Amino acid sequence: MKLKRFLPWIIGLGGYALLMVGMAWAGDPTGASTGTIADVTAAVAGKPTLEELGKALGHNILASNFIWTLVAGFLVMFMQAGFMLVETGMCRAKNAAHTAFMNFAVYFIGMTGFYLTGFALMMGNSAGIASLGGVAPLGSAFSIELFGKSFQLFGTSGFMLHGHSYDVGVFALFLFQMVFMDTAATIPTGAMAERWKTTNFVLFAFFMSMLIYPIFGNWVWGNGWLAKLGSNFGLGHGHVDFAGSSVVHMVGGVAALAGAIVLGPRIGKFDKTGKPAAMPGHHVPMAILGAMILAFGWFGFNAGSTLSGNDLRISVVAVNTMLASASGAIVSMIIMLMKTKKWDPNMTINGFLAGLVAITAPCAFVNAEIAFLIGAVAGGLVVASVYFVEGTMKLDDPVGAISVHGVNGAWGVLSLGLFADGTYGDGWNGVAGTVKGLFYGDAGQFSAQLIGTIACFVFVFVSFYLFFFITNKIWGIRVSKQTELEGLDIPECGGLGYPDFPLQNK
Amino acid sequence: MKLKRFLPWIIGLGGYALLMVGMAWAGDPTGASTGTIADVTAAVAGKPTLEELGKALGHNILASNFIWTLVAGFLVMFMQAGFMLVETGMCRAKNAAHTAFMNFAVYFIGMTGFYLTGFALMMGNSAGIASLGGVAPLGSAFSIELFGKSFQLFGTSGFMLHGHSYDVGVFALFLFQMVFMDTAATIPTGAMAERWKTTNFVLFAFFMSMLIYPIFGNWVWGNGWLAKLGSNFGLGHGHVDFAGSSVVHMVGGVAALAGAIVLGPRIGKFDKTGKPAAMPGHHVPMAILGAMILAFGWFGFNAGSTLSGNDLRISVVAVNTMLASASGAIVSMIIMLMKTKKWDPNMTINGFLAGLVAITAPCAFVNAEIAFLIGAVAGGLVVASVYFVEGTMKLDDPVGAISVHGVNGAWGVLSLGLFADGTYGDGWNGVAGTVKGLFYGDAGQFSAQLIGTIACFVFVFVSFYLFFFITNKIWGIRVSKQTELEGLDIPECGGLGYPDFPLQNK
Amino acid sequence: MKLKRFLPWIIGLGGYALLMVGMAWAGDPTGASTGTIADVTAAVAGKPTLEELGKALGHNILASNFIWTLVAGFLVMFMQAGFMLVETGMCRAKNAAHTAFMNFAVYFIGMTGFYLTGFALMMGNSAGIASLGGVAPLGSAFSIELFGKSFQLFGTSGFMLHGHSYDVGVFALFLFQMVFMDTAATIPTGAMAERWKTTNFVLFAFFMSMLIYPIFGNWVWGNGWLAKLGSNFGLGHGHVDFAGSSVVHMVGGVAALAGAIVLGPRIGKFDKTGKPAAMPGHHVPMAILGAMILAFGWFGFNAGSTLSGNDLRISVVAVNTMLASASGAIVSMIIMLMKTKKWDPNMTINGFLAGLVAITAPCAFVNAEIAFLIGAVAGGLVVASVYFVEGTMKLDDPVGAISVHGVNGAWGVLSLGLFADGTYGDGWNGVAGTVKGLFYGDAGQFSAQLIGTIACFVFVFVSFYLFFFITNKIWGIRVSKQTELEGLDIPECGGLGYPDFPLQNK
Repeated sequence: MKLKRFLPWIIGLGGYALLMVGMAWAGDPTGASTGTIADVTAAVAGKPTLEELGKALGHNILASNFIWTLVAGFLVMFMQAGFMLVETGMCRAKNAAHTAFMNFAVYFIGMTGFYLTGFALMMGNSAGIASLGGVAPLGSAFSIELFGKSFQLFGTSGFMLHGHSYDVGVFALFLFQMVFMDTAATIPTGAMAERWKTTNFVLFAFFMSMLIYPIFGNWVWGNGWLAKLGSNFGLGHGHVDFAGSSVVHMVGGVAALAGAIVLGPRIGKFDKTGKPAAMPGHHVPMAILGAMILAFGWFGFNAGSTLSGNDLRISVVAVNTMLASASGAIVSMIIMLMKTKKWDPNMTINGFLAGLVAITAPCAFVNAEIAFLIGAVAGGLVVASVYFVEGTMKLDDPVGAISVHGVNGAWGVLSLGLFADGTYGDGWNGVAGTVKGLFYGDAGQFSAQLIGTIACFVFVFVSFYLFFFITNKIWGIRVSKQTELEGLDIPECGGLGYPDFPLQNK
Repeated sequence: MKLKRFLPWIIGLGGYALLMVGMAWAGDPTGASTGTIADVTAAVAGKPTLEELGKALGHNILASNFIWTLVAGFLVMFMQAGFMLVETGMCRAKNAAHTAFMNFAVYFIGMTGFYLTGFALMMGNSAGIASLGGVAPLGSAFSIELFGKSFQLFGTSGFMLHGHSYDVGVFALFLFQMVFMDTAATIPTGAMAERWKTTNFVLFAFFMSMLIYPIFGNWVWGNGWLAKLGSNFGLGHGHVDFAGSSVVHMVGGVAALAGAIVLGPRIGKFDKTGKPAAMPGHHVPMAILGAMILAFGWFGFNAGSTLSGNDLRISVVAVNTMLASASGAIVSMIIMLMKTKKWDPNMTINGFLAGLVAITAPCAFVNAEIAFLIGAVAGGLVVASVYFVEGTMKLDDPVGAISVHGVNGAWGVLSLGLFADGTYGDGWNGVAGTVKGLFYGDAGQFSAQLIGTIACFVFVFVSFYLFFFITNKIWGIRVSKQTELEGLDIPECGGLGYPDFPLQNK
Repeated sequence: MKLKRFLPWIIGLGGYALLMVGMAWAGDPTGASTGTIADVTAAVAGKPTLEELGKALGHNILASNFIWTLVAGFLVMFMQAGFMLVETGMCRAKNAAHTAFMNFAVYFIGMTGFYLTGFALMMGNSAGIASLGGVAPLGSAFSIELFGKSFQLFGTSGFMLHGHSYDVGVFALFLFQMVFMDTAATIPTGAMAERWKTTNFVLFAFFMSMLIYPIFGNWVWGNGWLAKLGSNFGLGHGHVDFAGSSVVHMVGGVAALAGAIVLGPRIGKFDKTGKPAAMPGHHVPMAILGAMILAFGWFGFNAGSTLSGNDLRISVVAVNTMLASASGAIVSMIIMLMKTKKWDPNMTINGFLAGLVAITAPCAFVNAEIAFLIGAVAGGLVVASVYFVEGTMKLDDPVGAISVHGVNGAWGVLSLGLFADGTYGDGWNGVAGTVKGLFYGDAGQFSAQLIGTIACFVFVFVSFYLFFFITNKIWGIRVSKQTELEGLDIPECGGLGYPDFPLQNK
């Protein structure tokens, strides 16, 4: 019996040990392949001309940029898992499958919508991006004339990547832009969790990815009217947002706000006097894991936004990004410690994320001290906002998405308008010179940031308020009371998130 | 008391604030290191000759390829965690420790087996890979003569990397091939979960990694007879599989099929009339996290398979990969919605993964529309197959591994034979010209794909059926009825997966 | 009703299908951007001179190194999530929120401390690192004279990155060093889990990141006295530690030892006769996920430590790293199988991690066979050490941190002193020639490794013993008995880790 049990081991490992000893003793010649001039493509192998060298180098420079941009894009995609975990962990166990499912589904639904129309509306009038090999320009847009200037509202070419098959630069750009959009689209699932009808969520995901995100994205990153506030009206470099404090996070946060208003609070969240009840998330380690995955992916989010590995400022961006998360977390942790005498994991996560959201716009334009400061302010803002949203506005946002992404997205773009110190951004949005904030003498830049912030709020809030209001009238956007009390997992997803575990506090 | 509690804070943060203010005010000189001609190795520093430039450039081109290949390999390794989570989440809580343990153990057991013999059998007759610096060729194989042609069956050099110490190209190749093998080896743990004896699983992991995977891998990627169907018999470019729909996924899925047959269904899976019972997984968010990690790692799996960051088609591959996952998920989600009126997380995960499996072979050879289409078909196929395997074949595959990896692995290589459009693959497998599928005029290519698919099924199924059949006769491959009913965690792993939580539905 | 439900689908998908068909039929022109000589910056576009080529190449070489170093650093940061999961999974459910929180908080608290003083103390006297563009040197230190030689004890420039704003090389170095420090700082949270007061933990995190880690780090990696044992006293190349077996892991493990001694065992761990009780972790899949994330990040940890993507030895390092984890896991798994007849997930994880810890120092200096051997020894050592720490020393280390990181950190640096084979490290620490261990004829190198090991133990143990002893006297470092019995989640963190699940085995 015993022998039979160990027979495979004796055969496998005994043989292995013998082989290993034998081989190690037999000596192990050392080979070595290493790059030489022969690795440069040349008509006469090993004897490249100056021109052949130049061609190979130009290609390799692009390769570096592609590697950087793609790896960064992969990291951003992984942030979807971070959102899933933060939001699911902060919700109750009876809704775990549904919350997780929405965060998963938004990835592939959003992607489909963005592929279909979003990318074209957003980047349809982009000049080639030099760092990705120029990219065949996507060249048409819809604009209107106002005050004698052209206001570009959205692009109109590149639907389904049409006309750009195998244009590697366009594909790299598509991947990177897509994962950013998905980040914005997943934010409202947090604020609307535990009561949102899945059908409406699916419709929302298409509406966001196909229409609203791309349009605002076009205004800032696709040569739209906000980007042109500088060249058209002399307001600094126009609205500048390095990696998406406004384009991604504020859009998501404002949509979350509109959704939370129309949807209303969860049953039991507010008592008759309007006093909010605590509804603790069911899985703290899950939420913490999510936050750490988000911070991991955020390196790609921010530092990847150079779209170039040859722009060595990537190291500054990465360091600024992590420093802002640290100060944001510390400040919110300390505030809660003073308020409650407890080390509050949830609010610390929110401060941590708020720092990341805020530094997203200015990360390339400020030095480390200022990055730390911007994050610290974000950590305070998020706590104040969470209490304001819940206590004063009487809105129910289970994960704090409005405060983390909406409020701090705004703070991010505004902080750039204050602190950009003129060491980066030469020629940004077609305006000569570097980007300078109010404290470095350019009030116009701050104005452009402010206009962008207001435009974001108005456009996104109105769009989503109407969207939720209308779809609510037609189909209803909220599950039935019974479904909500029971938990959405069985009614919406056909099964519990954790069928083998009994639940309490239902 | 209170002061004591806050003393560390006062000291730490107060001091910090003072320092920060002081430093920021003291001014902060700006340094800047940036690449110059001095960073090129040259006899006269800063004055490289044309030849020195060429040498440095050749080296740097290789560096780009190494960075790309290694980072991609790391991502593929991380997919092991994805498999662990999907399979564990889809199993019952009473088997969680055991299921997770198998998915963990397959990583290091498989690695050991592949290091010992697998790599040599698979890549032992590979010419140097140019993108990794030529690699000292691994140069011997076992072949037989048939029809006047040589049929290579497996390689015979490079055991334990012997003879290639410090050959950096061989090591990079080993890492990349190893993590692919581990992916195949981990697939059957899903189909055989909740009843498989650990001892037999360990034996299986060695058998797969040391013998079966490497041999089929050799046929397709190691200059074996399937790769030579083109040059030997004029069938297109021979069997072409860009990143492993057949080599990795179909091998894993067919092994899973053999295992599920020999092992039999879980107790209670089928009633006396053969009607299957639902046995829901115990942790939906865990399964979803796993799916997202898999999609994250799959970028490395597919786009890394260029083994070159200088092959800019990497961006097309990455985009195609994600588009196929989107359409696969959407189709399976909608089918389930129509069948059950529910948003089914499990089947959506399976459609998502099926799209990824299917696009793995053709990802570099088709454009975005076709990638989306291939994924959509996969999403339908996987649902049909899951119902067929369970309802008609009466097999019990707790996670759907046979359908996701086996069926869609086959669909992947066949779809390449249909849709490859002739824009890529010049010189693939030593055949001049690009790769074209049936719809682009090359019926021979489709035949090569079909032959490879059949060869994969026959070789792998027979090998593993015999393996499981024989080991079952000698040692038994299934745990006792009592162990299965109780759950495998304590009997096999010595402790529960979740000792602090009471379970229901046991 | 039904129509309303499906209306969005009909509109969305129907339209999509139409568009897709239409577009695919309309034909899809193929673009292609690819690098050319035009991508090289030149005064006359497309006609770079030799000098311009050299400048562009020098810059791109740096870009490769930055990409590699930063991506590797991101992976190391992600290891924090791995630690969080391993430690939380190995603790009891009643302490899950607290354990997870400490592992999260150490990331941002440690980062702040390292930014404030740690980086300056550690790297404040570093010459420019060529692979990162020379980096403006950080140029001052505190040294003492002994035996007529200068012993550098710590650096004194670069506080808060001051004086290096926007020096991209310094920022990249900061990021990489910071994430390593955080790894060391998070190790003791495992050994001290389930009873450690959060306030003291926070103080500890500052003490570690601001003072102790940086000082020992300076000795080995910052031109400190251990690094100079070679040039000052002829002991090989001085203390050599490629990626931190001593600097990171042994520092963390020895601090854990000091903490576990002062803190004492958990209530119920030892009975009156001193017999230890099993206190199984509450979540095996969580611990396994953590181990896999750690192995994923470890590729960055070790292979990234070249700080250069142009050092192609990165592939050897990566392969050695994974091979050592495999042999470590297998050995510890088999030992436990022989002892208990069970497949022990926890001890297998510990063997897996022990192999990784041990190979961290020698990974670049040995070939694959030796890497496998070093890992195998680590797998045995860790089991012996766990039993020794618990059974003989009567210390309570819930996750085995002392054995995994402390003991095997020491084994790692010593193994380098035995097995380094003279194929790498030319000029390391300013000593000409390659690094050779005792078995390759350099007894001095082994002495340097031994001295470093002893210095690490003495310095770190004394520092942390004093730290814990003193803070224990002043504030107390352990939670109350009642808090410990109840679980730390509510008393320390204000809420349960899993409020929706009833617990057993409390």
